[in-house]
Amino acid sequence: MAQQHLEPTDPTAGTVTGDALAGYLRAQATEFLRALRLHRETGGDGGAPARARSRVGDNGSEQSVDAARALRRSARRISASLHTFRPLLDTDWSESIRPELAWLSGTLAMEHAYAARLERLLLALHRLSGAAVLPTQSGAVDAAGVTGAADAPAAPGLAVSAGPPERGNLTVGAAKAGALLERQLTLARTRAHSTALQALGSSRFHAVADNIALLASEVPLTPAAATADLRPLAAAAEERLTDAVAALPLVTAGHPYNAEALIHGLSPDPAPHPQDAPWHQVRLLLRLHRYAREVLHGDDARVDVRMLTAGQALNRHRDASEAAGAAAQAARTPRIAPATAYALGVLHADQRHEVEAARFAFQQSWQRQTVGTP
Amino acid sequence: MAQQHLEPTDPTAGTVTGDALAGYLRAQATEFLRALRLHRETGGDGGAPARARSRVGDNGSEQSVDAARALRRSARRISASLHTFRPLLDTDWSESIRPELAWLSGTLAMEHAYAARLERLLLALHRLSGAAVLPTQSGAVDAAGVTGAADAPAAPGLAVSAGPPERGNLTVGAAKAGALLERQLTLARTRAHSTALQALGSSRFHAVADNIALLASEVPLTPAAATADLRPLAAAAEERLTDAVAALPLVTAGHPYNAEALIHGLSPDPAPHPQDAPWHQVRLLLRLHRYAREVLHGDDARVDVRMLTAGQALNRHRDASEAAGAAAQAARTPRIAPATAYALGVLHADQRHEVEAARFAFQQSWQRQTVGTP
Repeated sequence: MAQQHLEPTDPTAGTVTGDALAGYLRAQATEFLRALRLHRETGGDGGAPARARSRVGDNGSEQSVDAARALRRSARRISASLHTFRPLLDTDWSESIRPELAWLSGTLAMEHAYAARLERLLLALHRLSGAAVLPTQSGAVDAAGVTGAADAPAAPGLAVSAGPPERGNLTVGAAKAGALLERQLTLARTRAHSTALQALGSSRFHAVADNIALLASEVPLTPAAATADLRPLAAAAEERLTDAVAALPLVTAGHPYNAEALIHGLSPDPAPHPQDAPWHQVRLLLRLHRYAREVLHGDDARVDVRMLTAGQALNRHRDASEAAGAAAQAARTPRIAPATAYALGVLHADQRHEVEAARFAFQQSWQRQTVGTP
Repeated sequence: MAQQHLEPTDPTAGTVTGDALAGYLRAQATEFLRALRLHRETGGDGGAPARARSRVGDNGSEQSVDAARALRRSARRISASLHTFRPLLDTDWSESIRPELAWLSGTLAMEHAYAARLERLLLALHRLSGAAVLPTQSGAVDAAGVTGAADAPAAPGLAVSAGPPERGNLTVGAAKAGALLERQLTLARTRAHSTALQALGSSRFHAVADNIALLASEVPLTPAAATADLRPLAAAAEERLTDAVAALPLVTAGHPYNAEALIHGLSPDPAPHPQDAPWHQVRLLLRLHRYAREVLHGDDARVDVRMLTAGQALNRHRDASEAAGAAAQAARTPRIAPATAYALGVLHADQRHEVEAARFAFQQSWQRQTVGTP
């Protein structure tokens, strides 16, 4: 939004000032308000509790999902910019609004996260059952096939087939595991949906929306910010990223099949794998770096394919990590059949290997990455 | 045993004749008889049913294990040579003795296979439990630690800890899975031991031993064999190998984390994974090729590190495949706890990923391999 408009002979060429930050924040605030309006118009039922509706989705709910995604998207970018360019903004204002934006995007993200987690796990169950079924472009799973198989009489033992591994058919264990996950994650999703609706109707949210409306017209920069150079602050964000990446076990991650991710796969600790935390942290720092580049370079920043690849690997890492946790969690349900527990164990390990694969993919993309100063 | 003794100016330089085959077969037959004598002297109790004895092993049983290994080793080589160089040998004789050698080495191999499978699975359970325990050089696992944890009171649910993941401690699910596998595979091993002892005392075996004793003094070559060139037959063995390798899905195998090996991981078929069969076949063909090279080149053949690496990858593939099958088999035991079934599911998936890792390792070593005519 700034650099590319400067003439090469401009004495300030290469510097990007607080004006660019103000422009970016105003644009994101406008985007936020637009998404909010759309969300209200479409009824905000993107995660309606009824399963059929939530799985298939009608036009209204799809628009609502898009609106919620756009809300989260701009909230994340505003929050990230307030963080990275903190010294250039009114401190009291930015320190009061950042936790509110984090609360909002966190609350709005849960519903989508549960839906995506369920879809990932059901797809994996199908794959592991040798069912030659690919998800449709929209990622929808044949829910009828899953629950149909789950209704089949459960015989003792594991190897009871609900038919040959055809489209939609799963073994009893896999089918029961799928049904259990569907029950648990749909419930979680429904709750997240209610929480999100409550949040969007709360006075706390209205205060955030008012703040963002103000931001769309006037950005509270410090007096010095208009002429201050943004690049040292963006460089500091990048440095935090590269420092965190340097602390990752990338040598191990670069060795295929290093079997690291499944260590503690049977550990008694039900908490998320502690080994995942530094990767999650890098994911957040990469996002901050990416948004800082957006502030500096505008739309040009989006063409960095390698950074996108690295980010996608870390998203996949996060998704697989949480899906593995959900499978382990489901296995703790009292009174499940051994065949169900076995299928959940296979599923858990499968997702932990996805975690390992994602780390490998990140390492590969990062190796290729030339990190220059923005 | 042949080529390296030829002078460079010898007009037959480069040809290896039936004499080399006769020498190789006599040497292997002598080795077989030596191992048989050693096995009889040490009492043949290498797989004694008592667990403590079978795990720790005294000097006598270790020698007996070595003797059984040497018996198998020479039986395999004799059998392979009869196969590869079939046209040069008395047909009736070689066709009568080959199935007997296959029966013998198969019978003798089972006991060791069950012991190795149990060790592999217990080590994997320890690794998956985050227990920072490495096997001792001899590969012994701390059996007391495993069964000690299994004796801990079993609480409902999965995440009940038998203590922090320290040396020898496993979660209840992992400990119960370990105890179940230990029971089942020790029983299988004990039965294999009895079967092997019966086999070694049978008249069928004595007939084999008599045949091998004859072979040690006189190899029944065809009249033309003494001057026939062995190389075309060895080349044909290599061609069968390269053809089989060419039919393997090596492109897929060369992509790390291709997630192929766990497809059908929850399939209803309790039979071994059909996708593993071509790899097992290549393993056997690689062995035939290796032994044919031994016939042609003698001890020099052993320095081909790349072929050894490829063979080790295929051994690992076979071992992991069978270990995964044993975990799945154990999960079909009636009335096991869900936590046990879950641990067995994780273990199964872990070993299937070992299968995938072994295929990757084979692909990598094969890529580097320069296959020349012997």
